[in-house]
Amino acid sequence: MSVTAPRGFRAAGVSAGIKTSSARDLALVVNDGPQHTAAGVFTTNRIQAAPVVWTQAQVRKEGTARGVVLNSGGANAATGKAGYADAEKTAQRAAELLQTVPEQVLICSTGLIGVPLPMDRLLTGLEAAQQQLSASAGAGLNAAEAIMTTDTVTKTVVIERDGWRVGGIAKGAGMLAPGMATMLVVLTTDAAADEKTLDAALRSATKVTFDRVDSDGCMSTNDTVLALASGASEITPAPEELAQALTEASANLARQLVADAEGATHDIAITVQNASTEMAAVIVARAISRSNLFKAAVFGNDPNWGRIISAAGTIPADIAPFDPQEIDVYVNGVQVCRAGGVGEDRSLVDMSPREVQVVVDLHAGNFEATIWTNDLTHDYVHENSAYSS
Amino acid sequence: MSVTAPRGFRAAGVSAGIKTSSARDLALVVNDGPQHTAAGVFTTNRIQAAPVVWTQAQVRKEGTARGVVLNSGGANAATGKAGYADAEKTAQRAAELLQTVPEQVLICSTGLIGVPLPMDRLLTGLEAAQQQLSASAGAGLNAAEAIMTTDTVTKTVVIERDGWRVGGIAKGAGMLAPGMATMLVVLTTDAAADEKTLDAALRSATKVTFDRVDSDGCMSTNDTVLALASGASEITPAPEELAQALTEASANLARQLVADAEGATHDIAITVQNASTEMAAVIVARAISRSNLFKAAVFGNDPNWGRIISAAGTIPADIAPFDPQEIDVYVNGVQVCRAGGVGEDRSLVDMSPREVQVVVDLHAGNFEATIWTNDLTHDYVHENSAYSS
Repeated sequence: MSVTAPRGFRAAGVSAGIKTSSARDLALVVNDGPQHTAAGVFTTNRIQAAPVVWTQAQVRKEGTARGVVLNSGGANAATGKAGYADAEKTAQRAAELLQTVPEQVLICSTGLIGVPLPMDRLLTGLEAAQQQLSASAGAGLNAAEAIMTTDTVTKTVVIERDGWRVGGIAKGAGMLAPGMATMLVVLTTDAAADEKTLDAALRSATKVTFDRVDSDGCMSTNDTVLALASGASEITPAPEELAQALTEASANLARQLVADAEGATHDIAITVQNASTEMAAVIVARAISRSNLFKAAVFGNDPNWGRIISAAGTIPADIAPFDPQEIDVYVNGVQVCRAGGVGEDRSLVDMSPREVQVVVDLHAGNFEATIWTNDLTHDYVHENSAYSS
Repeated sequence: MSVTAPRGFRAAGVSAGIKTSSARDLALVVNDGPQHTAAGVFTTNRIQAAPVVWTQAQVRKEGTARGVVLNSGGANAATGKAGYADAEKTAQRAAELLQTVPEQVLICSTGLIGVPLPMDRLLTGLEAAQQQLSASAGAGLNAAEAIMTTDTVTKTVVIERDGWRVGGIAKGAGMLAPGMATMLVVLTTDAAADEKTLDAALRSATKVTFDRVDSDGCMSTNDTVLALASGASEITPAPEELAQALTEASANLARQLVADAEGATHDIAITVQNASTEMAAVIVARAISRSNLFKAAVFGNDPNWGRIISAAGTIPADIAPFDPQEIDVYVNGVQVCRAGGVGEDRSLVDMSPREVQVVVDLHAGNFEATIWTNDLTHDYVHENSAYSS
């Protein structure tokens, strides 16, 4: 079950022929109400794809949406005015099919940058998708399948609450390749929520989940996380309850993204503890997660703590105060670095599990944050060098 | 010719047994004067190796130095108080051998972090180095060889001026692996210069050369660039002449570092032009140079401009103002992206040369900067996953 688990939602996923393969490549998620509340969080990349420009504007202006059209096989990014017109055309046609106005239709695209979408096939596929709309579990799964690019598995989630649910689909082949594997997420809920509450809940959820999955800082032009609320349960949870449920769903999907990093041999959780602020913990953890040297070492099953503290040391003291002579590092429970120097023998670290736990203790405060990433592997290089050729 | 090309300098490079191989691993560069002016530029990483702590303090305090001891086979980083004591011991023994005070001896180390140096062997090797000190070209080359780690070739330079010279040695296997391949550089000159002039000249030189060679932002714990002036030519060049000569020498060595990136198949020059400030040009170029997606694409001979503008787009508008709808990208002379959209067919780009020229035109001002990097290859992953095992 996924986006169709909460009441008030139908979905479909079809093969429109946008991809060169015959795989599903066009998804439709429709909110049948009674409410149509919508919220969105978007890439902060200044190079925004046409669907992001369209969808961000509609979500901000309307705070409501009847449906979302998502396609794989093309990002519709860096496609100029023609690309924006294509996004508008898609919204117009979907609005006709759903008997609403274009402003109520949100658009997400993923695939190669700089290539126009095959609009004839996309629009024909849209009709097929509309005809196949269903509240069944299979329809939600078809939608999850239609947004896959290099993903090897569909990503879905359902969170159960007392009388209401949150469902979701996501795509993104780990954060190993976010430039090609734009992260697209659609969360649905049959809880009742006004725009402000849904928006706040989504932001608090993404801040500690999707925003903390990182590998190479290659922010996509298309990253989009949408939340749709139908109110069909007739239950209005407290704002913090809704935020908690969206956070749980987002954390679950974020872990699935990390786990599906093609070619990765390790998932890495980098926890920075006893930082002066939460932001300091995030920034230090992110610096470590972006160290190619550290990530290549993990691929070699080497708990190379020198590369960990070296990455931490790149952050200026005014951003993350700590004493380099006090820093401790634990890899899979073994304290390999004590007070900035050699700790336990690194050969004591068991690097065989897929999940590698790195804990960095800054001894500078009481704040903590965890960033998820993957190791840097031959397959990462291979996949990303071969993608557009 | 290298550090011994300017008058007043002797050098040596010996095998002290610090490396497990029998390769040279200990170098000594001595300034016989009459002047002993010294300047240094050091890593900004807060995790500084013991030799960096020692050397930075002496250069700042004294502004003079009689000699430099450099070793490969061990970084003496994250080695605590014992590691600092080892750096002191090295300076003390070198001072005895050179009949000076320890404060006049600078120390540089490179190799694995977190491993103590084999001091007995190092100190014995130091005596051998002192006995072999010579002003010959071969002695300078031996010193260049003794600081190599994963370098495949020695890096040396000589710049001729009217009556004076600048010489230099460097190590660093490209910026592909700066964490293991700490960049160490010693520049010598027989020009006469006071401390302030030499310091200013060195800073202006490194700013536009070594500071603009980048690949993964993995700043080393040991990076050091030293300049020594003997005054033996009895010529005092104008400050800007000295700065120009040091810049020329540094640019030459920086290019050698990029060219010796093991396993790299392409050197990449990323020029950002028409930026609002020089800093904006540097920051945008650096963001592109740190995109694993872009660098893997270059490895695949793919002029993937989408990844170039996507990386540029990660820089906030207040730091580097530009209109995403105006950005142009040229790869090896072909305008693959025009006004933020598709330009010439990417198949027109000849990616066969080792050097790849990327030009990004921001249309936002008159400033320009170039950052050098390499592509991201299988061999990068292999080397950096296998290093400490």
